[in-house]
Amino acid sequence: MSSRRHSHRASLIWAAAPQGEPRHARRARANGAAVGSGFDAEPSGRTHPLTDRSANARLHAYDQRVKGAFDRIVPVLKRIAQLRCAPDFVAQAQVIAETELGFRMPEDRLEEAWIAGLDLRTLFAWSVFETYRRMADEFLIEDPLGGRESSSFEAFLQECGFHMLDVTPCADGRLAHAISYVLRLPFGAVRRKSYAGGLFDVEDAVTKWVEIEYRRFREGRPNTADAPTRYLKAVIYHFSSHDPAQQGCAAHGSDDARAARAALERLLAFRQAIENSFCCGASVALLLIGLDTDTDAIRIHVPNAAGEVALDRSVDAARVYDMTCDLAPDAARARVLELVRDAAPDGAPDAGKTQLIARLIENNLSQIDFVRALHGGRYGDHGHAERFMGVGVGFDEIQLRNLTYFAYLDTVEEGAADLDVGCMIFSGLNVSRGLPIPVVIRFDYRGAVPGARERAILHCQRLDRALVERFERQASAGHLHRLLAVRDTDAGTGLEIVGSSLQRDGIGGR
Amino acid sequence: MSSRRHSHRASLIWAAAPQGEPRHARRARANGAAVGSGFDAEPSGRTHPLTDRSANARLHAYDQRVKGAFDRIVPVLKRIAQLRCAPDFVAQAQVIAETELGFRMPEDRLEEAWIAGLDLRTLFAWSVFETYRRMADEFLIEDPLGGRESSSFEAFLQECGFHMLDVTPCADGRLAHAISYVLRLPFGAVRRKSYAGGLFDVEDAVTKWVEIEYRRFREGRPNTADAPTRYLKAVIYHFSSHDPAQQGCAAHGSDDARAARAALERLLAFRQAIENSFCCGASVALLLIGLDTDTDAIRIHVPNAAGEVALDRSVDAARVYDMTCDLAPDAARARVLELVRDAAPDGAPDAGKTQLIARLIENNLSQIDFVRALHGGRYGDHGHAERFMGVGVGFDEIQLRNLTYFAYLDTVEEGAADLDVGCMIFSGLNVSRGLPIPVVIRFDYRGAVPGARERAILHCQRLDRALVERFERQASAGHLHRLLAVRDTDAGTGLEIVGSSLQRDGIGGR
Repeated sequence: MSSRRHSHRASLIWAAAPQGEPRHARRARANGAAVGSGFDAEPSGRTHPLTDRSANARLHAYDQRVKGAFDRIVPVLKRIAQLRCAPDFVAQAQVIAETELGFRMPEDRLEEAWIAGLDLRTLFAWSVFETYRRMADEFLIEDPLGGRESSSFEAFLQECGFHMLDVTPCADGRLAHAISYVLRLPFGAVRRKSYAGGLFDVEDAVTKWVEIEYRRFREGRPNTADAPTRYLKAVIYHFSSHDPAQQGCAAHGSDDARAARAALERLLAFRQAIENSFCCGASVALLLIGLDTDTDAIRIHVPNAAGEVALDRSVDAARVYDMTCDLAPDAARARVLELVRDAAPDGAPDAGKTQLIARLIENNLSQIDFVRALHGGRYGDHGHAERFMGVGVGFDEIQLRNLTYFAYLDTVEEGAADLDVGCMIFSGLNVSRGLPIPVVIRFDYRGAVPGARERAILHCQRLDRALVERFERQASAGHLHRLLAVRDTDAGTGLEIVGSSLQRDGIGGR
Repeated sequence: MSSRRHSHRASLIWAAAPQGEPRHARRARANGAAVGSGFDAEPSGRTHPLTDRSANARLHAYDQRVKGAFDRIVPVLKRIAQLRCAPDFVAQAQVIAETELGFRMPEDRLEEAWIAGLDLRTLFAWSVFETYRRMADEFLIEDPLGGRESSSFEAFLQECGFHMLDVTPCADGRLAHAISYVLRLPFGAVRRKSYAGGLFDVEDAVTKWVEIEYRRFREGRPNTADAPTRYLKAVIYHFSSHDPAQQGCAAHGSDDARAARAALERLLAFRQAIENSFCCGASVALLLIGLDTDTDAIRIHVPNAAGEVALDRSVDAARVYDMTCDLAPDAARARVLELVRDAAPDGAPDAGKTQLIARLIENNLSQIDFVRALHGGRYGDHGHAERFMGVGVGFDEIQLRNLTYFAYLDTVEEGAADLDVGCMIFSGLNVSRGLPIPVVIRFDYRGAVPGARERAILHCQRLDRALVERFERQASAGHLHRLLAVRDTDAGTGLEIVGSSLQRDGIGGR
């Protein structure tokens, strides 16, 4: 695996073309002209009048391309395994790997297969990590979802009366696409920090609030402190309409009402912390959003004019869809706004907040059509189907559903419960099939802070040791492989790989 | 042990009087009229003209009273142990405990001694924890060192051009008195956050800086943002003049030069982080201080006009003492100022910074006399002599030298190295004599933040479990006892005890 700090741009064209596909077709595919997507194949297919069909096609192509790259790994390794007795095995295997996966296997592991056997677990972990690295670098450098073009949404947000949108989705992998897909927001305009059960760290949120407000005072970014805008903190809890008792939020025992109540309590605690800690009327605006992980339809608990939220009153995008799908676009948009106003417990919120909520509902209509067209209205993988585990802090590049099981944490000690759940999930997904659990350990750092890179690397290494200690059995059996990566968020470059359990000299505990 | 949230004030008169001493004498003793201190017994004893003799007497009395309370525990337990065959053992033991230590022993532990034997390890840990609790509550509520009367020093600090003094001493127990004794500053006017080797967390310091600056912008505290004052960040490294190769800073292998260089590098990294992260000329002022842990004399690396610090140039308080001890107070004060100016590498710092450094040097002259009068100019306990280990975040009440071994940490995972050193030290101090290691696990929280108390308690419990896991051998042998305490820093009350390994139902891991 390459551990060069900045990958050469050429290496970023990482998705292997099916054999024989010319390069221009490959690029077109990458840009959304996916053959057979639910949008282009059926241009007349019925969608909501406000649905953005071209965005749906583009998002689908990206999803297919990335998940396809991960899902090709096992079939390709099976083909390679069948060739191991061939006299030119190494050369044949490399041709297959390069053609199908877009990269070569580690030569030494193939060379020694004749005597040591073919270590397919290592090759699997190696391939997952290399696929992740390429996908992350492409995302971070080439911005395939256009999520950094955020100025128009930021302007809209300020018109609505907010200078910051800070969203905490549940850390469940089925919400990893919440910003880019479910809400259709440019990720560059949103602070996303996921927590199990949506239960964000109040102290951390207060620290972030202070930082944002301070920039307004000192630097006038994103606007000056005297502008009458607010900091908007949102939580997305989730539930399953298909299998509510089993596939809801694990952190809340699949109990929707409990998930919503806990998220609201945390939001109120945050607001109270700000109001109690700072004088002069300091406060924040709150937004509680629910997500049906089977259909990707959201519901928003519209607050009233006083900012109060009722758990039993919300505007439900699936119902809005049905009530507006026969209207012309402008009429539909006006009706959405009305439905939002009507959903507040008593007295609608101010015009700005109403506008913003209506925009989120409208955006979600496209996603409802996305799931209808591509998954028959309901995801087939309503349970876990993650490809790897992500542990640490960062992971901006993960914007796809069910690609990654997250455990956002600084230490194994604090995040042990999430890690145990993750290992249990992957014992079912991978270990039961003989495959190891691939874990990406990741810490972002600010390059402007001296020594921050070195500290991020030490952090990765310490976490790796603690992980191996906690999951000693899996690690010593070769069932737990780790990739260690850091990223300079100030530089806006790709990942830097700083270690891996696949290295011959080993890292961490073994 | 009491777990009441707010101790009744009467319980705070905790230091037991020697038998027969009337109550008024006890109060007088507490107020500094210590019989036999080096100051009152020899009123004509030679001290530096700038030494504050009455402060020395007061500080000495407090030190003696607190350490005396801890040091009476073993002799008292020995006396109690000798009585265990007496028919009225329980009553006799309680009389002795109450008279000598100021509190009663847990009745059930004494009652069962006839059959189960007297568990002196438990009684020892119990007594240490109860003594700590009383000492902490007295400190936090009654402010015996007057450290909260900080307004005049704060005004002086602003006159010198600074709106914040943020000091990182090394976490070594021999620097725990750095603020209140060595520098003679009111602890309420100083942010103290100790780190092993003085190597403070840059990211944490930046967060604190933002918070302080934000308050200036928003609330005009401690002054408004347009006042031309700066944030002053200081580090205190240390060395041993008596035994430089053995008793210097363990984190830097007892290498003075390395300790100073590392501290300076960390200071520069902090300044650069601020300058790189914030526009408009944001910066901080830096101060590097060395401490001889044998004599408590400091040296200050006086920066030049450009703020640059030279590791090989400093003003040394012990030398200043000798050069000014024959002058009249005013002349001595003027000479101190001159010596500070002369110590800068080229071009003295601005007048404000020079004033502040001169004040710190002058304050330190009193401490040099303190050590001369009471310890013959050099501490007898130049090595470790801590009475308990303090683990977590907080511990404002610890302002005494060699009372506590600190491991400031959020998790065992991050602080493992410091904890290992602590356990090693106490294996020598305690376990080798058959005594357990008493550990206070402590997290402060802000009561203004909803849920913060509950999170602090969970934090204590999680840390306790991790500690027991790491030191399994000591814990299962009964050699590791823990007290769990939290404190609301917004309320300004005393400690709240939330658990203990001495409870019959157990906590944490066992």
